[in-house]
Amino acid sequence: MASLRIAVDAMGGDFGLRTTVPASIKSLKRCSDLHITLVGERASIENELKRHRRADLSRLEILHADDIVADDDKPSQSLRDKRASSMAVALEALRDGRVSAVVSAGNTGALMALSCMIVSRLPGVRRPAICAPIPSMHGHTYLLDLGANVDSDPANLYQFATMGQALSRVVDDLDSPRIALLNIGEELIKGTRSVQEAAALIAADEHLNYVGFIEGNALFSDRADVVVCDGFVGNIALKVCEGTASFIGRLLRERFHRGIYGRVAGLTMGPLFNAFHKKIDPRRYNGAALLGLQGVVVKSHGGAGVVGFSEAIKHASFSVRRDLPAMIAEQLAAHASSKD
Amino acid sequence: MASLRIAVDAMGGDFGLRTTVPASIKSLKRCSDLHITLVGERASIENELKRHRRADLSRLEILHADDIVADDDKPSQSLRDKRASSMAVALEALRDGRVSAVVSAGNTGALMALSCMIVSRLPGVRRPAICAPIPSMHGHTYLLDLGANVDSDPANLYQFATMGQALSRVVDDLDSPRIALLNIGEELIKGTRSVQEAAALIAADEHLNYVGFIEGNALFSDRADVVVCDGFVGNIALKVCEGTASFIGRLLRERFHRGIYGRVAGLTMGPLFNAFHKKIDPRRYNGAALLGLQGVVVKSHGGAGVVGFSEAIKHASFSVRRDLPAMIAEQLAAHASSKD
Repeated sequence: MASLRIAVDAMGGDFGLRTTVPASIKSLKRCSDLHITLVGERASIENELKRHRRADLSRLEILHADDIVADDDKPSQSLRDKRASSMAVALEALRDGRVSAVVSAGNTGALMALSCMIVSRLPGVRRPAICAPIPSMHGHTYLLDLGANVDSDPANLYQFATMGQALSRVVDDLDSPRIALLNIGEELIKGTRSVQEAAALIAADEHLNYVGFIEGNALFSDRADVVVCDGFVGNIALKVCEGTASFIGRLLRERFHRGIYGRVAGLTMGPLFNAFHKKIDPRRYNGAALLGLQGVVVKSHGGAGVVGFSEAIKHASFSVRRDLPAMIAEQLAAHASSKD
Repeated sequence: MASLRIAVDAMGGDFGLRTTVPASIKSLKRCSDLHITLVGERASIENELKRHRRADLSRLEILHADDIVADDDKPSQSLRDKRASSMAVALEALRDGRVSAVVSAGNTGALMALSCMIVSRLPGVRRPAICAPIPSMHGHTYLLDLGANVDSDPANLYQFATMGQALSRVVDDLDSPRIALLNIGEELIKGTRSVQEAAALIAADEHLNYVGFIEGNALFSDRADVVVCDGFVGNIALKVCEGTASFIGRLLRERFHRGIYGRVAGLTMGPLFNAFHKKIDPRRYNGAALLGLQGVVVKSHGGAGVVGFSEAIKHASFSVRRDLPAMIAEQLAAHASSKD
């Protein structure tokens, strides 16, 4: 396998260097042909690396960037004022072919805006989308868009379906992934005009295996491989899913510390709970793809720890090895030509 | 306490009479001053009642209705063609003062449309909303709208905040419930134009204790008493919450049947799991209020069983005793007069 270089936005996320540096070192250990470029303030990165004197740092380099993107920077502001930020400098390395992917846990809006400007969209892409897998009983379902766009017209939703199909084909090796639209009912009459019109567009495309509307409670039911919605709805759906899981976790832990049943169950539940958490924990199931760009850009959860951020790096490596952007471009071209 | 008569749409919901009849009998047993009018096809109801020969049926009467609202009836269709349905006949009994509330597990869109036409809106209400409590660590949070409207402008969202405040004051006895808007970030710059404008309207109203934007993962955090969103988003948020809880339940049950740890944990977990389910199960946490009408109308989950449907009846009784519609009217009038 050819060697692979990934740029890590070292300054992004809730924990910045305290997560990105150890996660990078962990990833280098795990994968012997991986090279990582840590992008950020050189002195701070070097200082953080002092904690890891015993690690093999031969496949790690630093690319200095003066500035950082703040969590409350507007996308427009990041385009104007943050061209010297670690995020922008990492994306420039991707554009120039010095790395094959960028991983960042920073401000999502800024990452999308800067990616569109610096890395550029694939030909024909109207709006890029953010897409992540959510776990289901027997696998996972890709949900998109997760917040790249706050509103999407039917043509956008239709293109999300096409890009989601490409992702599922490439990553999961499915021939004809099942595509559904997230809606407030399964009947044809339900939902907004936008969802109705998107359904008509998707259903009319013989290249897409459209299976209809799906409701929020059926996301985990293995009834679709790709679920399409606008970015506002998708972001809230994903976060409600995380919030519910963490709420249930807290409820259960509280019970485990109460009464004799709780304590006994708590003891025996330890190993089970770990296995269970591995499946549902968003920190492990981490790494959202920015789809529709001329390069691999992966967004990590802002609150991801070392394990989670390493997963996002792994996700990026995987997308590079399968050349996801080329596959999406091919898919879009096939759709476009079939409509000519 | 004065006696109370509630109309139950006996034909609605996934299980129809097999749920509504036993739930009504259970409710009558639980509450000695409750009277119930079962609305639906008389012969079928009488037939179902044969299963309950030993129950005291003295506070139960039947109101015949020929027709039923189907799950895929459009709201407009129900207004035109379903005036003889159990749902419409129950709402007419409410309008005429023969009952004080209606409980139905039928088609939500039809229930809302028929309620607006037959029971009428309170003065000043632009759009009614559906509102239900979702559980949190130390209580619950009211979420609205849950699907009465598929799109809502800022003025609608503002009025939902006012109605939600009234509900929280009446039901939870809170003086100044905290109001939040559901959004894809907490920063002021996040979200759609509609959410941004609604935030400005709500923040400017000194009668509302507005605490800002809240994200999907913070719904369970006890940081707000009322969370406002449009009906499309709210419906999906609620169903994702249900779906996640049921997915985790299935995962845990699967673990409990696997290996020695699982079996031991399964034995001890029994009592805990029951307590836990009581807190999170939407079938128990059942009963959504249709707010903004001149009467109490409660929507039960379509898939609710006997326990869940009884909860919805209890919810309706409670709202009648506290005269929720009058409280909402008062609240809306106060807001309107403060703006004059």
